[in-house]
Amino acid sequence: MLDKQLAVALTDALASADMERVATLTADVNIPDLADFIAEIVLPGEEVDVLLTQTIERRAEVFGYLPLSLQEAIAPMMTAGQLSELVTHMPSDERADLFNVLDEVRKQQLFQRLAWEEREDIRRLASYEDGSAGAIMSSDYVWANVGMTVGEALDVIRRTAPDKETIYQVYVLDHTHQLMGVVSLRELIVAAGNVLVDDLMTTDIVSAFVNEEQREVARLISRYDLLALPIVDAAGKLVGIVTYDDAMDVQEAETTDDIHRGANISKLEVNFSDAKPLDLYRSRVHWLVILVFANIFTGAGIAYFEETIAAHIALLFFMPLLVASAGNAGSQSATLMVRGMATGDVTARDWGKLISKEIFVATALGLTMALAVMAVGYFRAGPDIALVVSLTMIIVVMVGSLIGMGLPLLLNKLNFDPATASTPLITTIADVSGVLIYFGIATVMLGLG
Amino acid sequence: MLDKQLAVALTDALASADMERVATLTADVNIPDLADFIAEIVLPGEEVDVLLTQTIERRAEVFGYLPLSLQEAIAPMMTAGQLSELVTHMPSDERADLFNVLDEVRKQQLFQRLAWEEREDIRRLASYEDGSAGAIMSSDYVWANVGMTVGEALDVIRRTAPDKETIYQVYVLDHTHQLMGVVSLRELIVAAGNVLVDDLMTTDIVSAFVNEEQREVARLISRYDLLALPIVDAAGKLVGIVTYDDAMDVQEAETTDDIHRGANISKLEVNFSDAKPLDLYRSRVHWLVILVFANIFTGAGIAYFEETIAAHIALLFFMPLLVASAGNAGSQSATLMVRGMATGDVTARDWGKLISKEIFVATALGLTMALAVMAVGYFRAGPDIALVVSLTMIIVVMVGSLIGMGLPLLLNKLNFDPATASTPLITTIADVSGVLIYFGIATVMLGLG
Repeated sequence: MLDKQLAVALTDALASADMERVATLTADVNIPDLADFIAEIVLPGEEVDVLLTQTIERRAEVFGYLPLSLQEAIAPMMTAGQLSELVTHMPSDERADLFNVLDEVRKQQLFQRLAWEEREDIRRLASYEDGSAGAIMSSDYVWANVGMTVGEALDVIRRTAPDKETIYQVYVLDHTHQLMGVVSLRELIVAAGNVLVDDLMTTDIVSAFVNEEQREVARLISRYDLLALPIVDAAGKLVGIVTYDDAMDVQEAETTDDIHRGANISKLEVNFSDAKPLDLYRSRVHWLVILVFANIFTGAGIAYFEETIAAHIALLFFMPLLVASAGNAGSQSATLMVRGMATGDVTARDWGKLISKEIFVATALGLTMALAVMAVGYFRAGPDIALVVSLTMIIVVMVGSLIGMGLPLLLNKLNFDPATASTPLITTIADVSGVLIYFGIATVMLGLG
Repeated sequence: MLDKQLAVALTDALASADMERVATLTADVNIPDLADFIAEIVLPGEEVDVLLTQTIERRAEVFGYLPLSLQEAIAPMMTAGQLSELVTHMPSDERADLFNVLDEVRKQQLFQRLAWEEREDIRRLASYEDGSAGAIMSSDYVWANVGMTVGEALDVIRRTAPDKETIYQVYVLDHTHQLMGVVSLRELIVAAGNVLVDDLMTTDIVSAFVNEEQREVARLISRYDLLALPIVDAAGKLVGIVTYDDAMDVQEAETTDDIHRGANISKLEVNFSDAKPLDLYRSRVHWLVILVFANIFTGAGIAYFEETIAAHIALLFFMPLLVASAGNAGSQSATLMVRGMATGDVTARDWGKLISKEIFVATALGLTMALAVMAVGYFRAGPDIALVVSLTMIIVVMVGSLIGMGLPLLLNKLNFDPATASTPLITTIADVSGVLIYFGIATVMLGLG
């Protein structure tokens, strides 16, 4: 967030097209803050003006921080020369992302101006599937050869540092580019110059394949406290690295997805505030409509017990509560399970233990709620119905909890992602069960008519 | 995760008390994997045996990776000498955490064996509030003095590196320990040895105060792609750093909290699989019981319309659906809002725009669902009720969505955390509104009795 005073001064300078003043004002601004300022510019074209006031290194960094949709909009406003200079200075992973959104004409123009090596790099990085390690990895890593001394490795690092994403992890490769070890700059710095890199490096390497899921890449980086995770191809050759900051972005995006999924919202490709109404509609309509059709079963359940209801209309006062309680208890235990499975906290080994714990907890919850509803029921509908309602409460909370716990386990056993379908499915099953159990018990205990 | 074969060999060696073999087998194992292995050990005391096979540096690291509850259980099994050696080698932040869980006797024993400086450090770090930056920061940072040359700074780094959490960010301090600038090891490495650190350092520093919330610290680290965030006291003096890996742990824990909150589960201090039944009960019972009492209003709503319902019992078939639809639409838009506000994507400036977009989306959703339910309603209950149900659907989806969007905004305006109360409150309000709107429309359109 830009300092308010600075933002005003900057807007003024921009309005009077005083680009020298813009350059002075922005020289020390943090990259993400400057990117935010540019993203807020209303007049098309001024984004480019501001970018051009920056050194080419800063310009490339700021550009990389802009939302991809804005990069796409700004790129055509630059000359082919400006764009290729910018692209040459961007980190390889951001460059590949930009290429994926450029139109064919621009792409060809750019390709002609880039060196062969850079072209190949872009083609390769742009070809990996969305959501895979390959799609976020960078090929700007520092590597040393097996057999080098620490002094030689430090020379390589000093020489190549300006183009690299990080220089704090050095990858040791053999002549076929096979990843043999990893050594940190920290270890190199404190070691004597004539020591062999081979004697310092760790050979127990944590790495991932190019087609690994990004969520798993982020998990590995977080678990092993890595600065960067080396990405290898099927032959074990190093093809790129994913840095911790990209992993943090993945974690944040996954969190948003997880939280949305808990409210039955499908994946949104963009931010909520940037999302088009149509995309928002699509992301939400899916489960809402499924709910309508799932209701056919609940409706049928109610219809089946029509006589009981007509005879004891006070039963209705508690129907929304009992149905909601079953669904709530179910979604609580499903959420605990699914999140536990996602963080690796819950493993197959634990299931027996967890299920017995859940039965205990659900019984306690059911009893507590039964007591609460007994009091409400007694005053509103008399002792008979209060008894029916509280007995039902115990059973629906237990059934809901067990469905909530069991379904993710079942989905997992069947090799489905337990997170995808759980909550809405569980709520629907719990709804139907709730209605059937409630009026079933009422029919038996109160008698027909 | 340890290789299966290795795990078996290790268990065998441990069973036959062959500690030399344990030492050989574990020498190259990754720290987190070894910690996991130790955490799974069943026989008390064997944890210490395995730890003692490691070098003191690795031992301290592995120990720091163990869950705090296990650290607490293992500590008394070590001699006072073993424990103080271990504690001396732990990173300062983990050391402070351990101290917080030790009993008084152990604490005093340890304090006597530690150097004055270490004692003061522990006392200071252990005194910060849970959830604050101070509670996760480390005092093992590298600093240089204003006026040093690059060569001098590199010498300091080399000399102090072994005890530091990270050496990749160097903090430049004046003689009062005031934070004047930050320079990266990368910049130092590529610069000439006689350049002044002052000429290289960034003075536009991103930092946080000791009492800042951890969530905000993680956000800053992620936004500015920092390796470590400097933490300063009210006077601007550097007191510690929070590293990116701690920020990733915070992010993960916050995600779990957010997701649990979405399912109305209160904060759990430990993992789901480690949680005691009583804690699980406590974390879940809260909202379930509130639900029971909120139901008094829904029940009263139904009671008010008893006559209408008795005359048109088919209306009941759709009650669970309409109530659920209002609640679902509401929790969808609340989730989008709350998450957008948490990630900083939605700001006060956007509200007008967002509300008009939401009205549009909600209308479209309501119309779609009305069409779906019209079909179901026609076949199950005839044209009159189908009309009532589909009209109700449009209105409840809109009302639900607007409550879901408006309530977080309102809570935010009133300076409450919008995430805390939203979902259950919204579901409850949507439930009551759903019932009232439904039977209200039915009474008007179908006539009384």
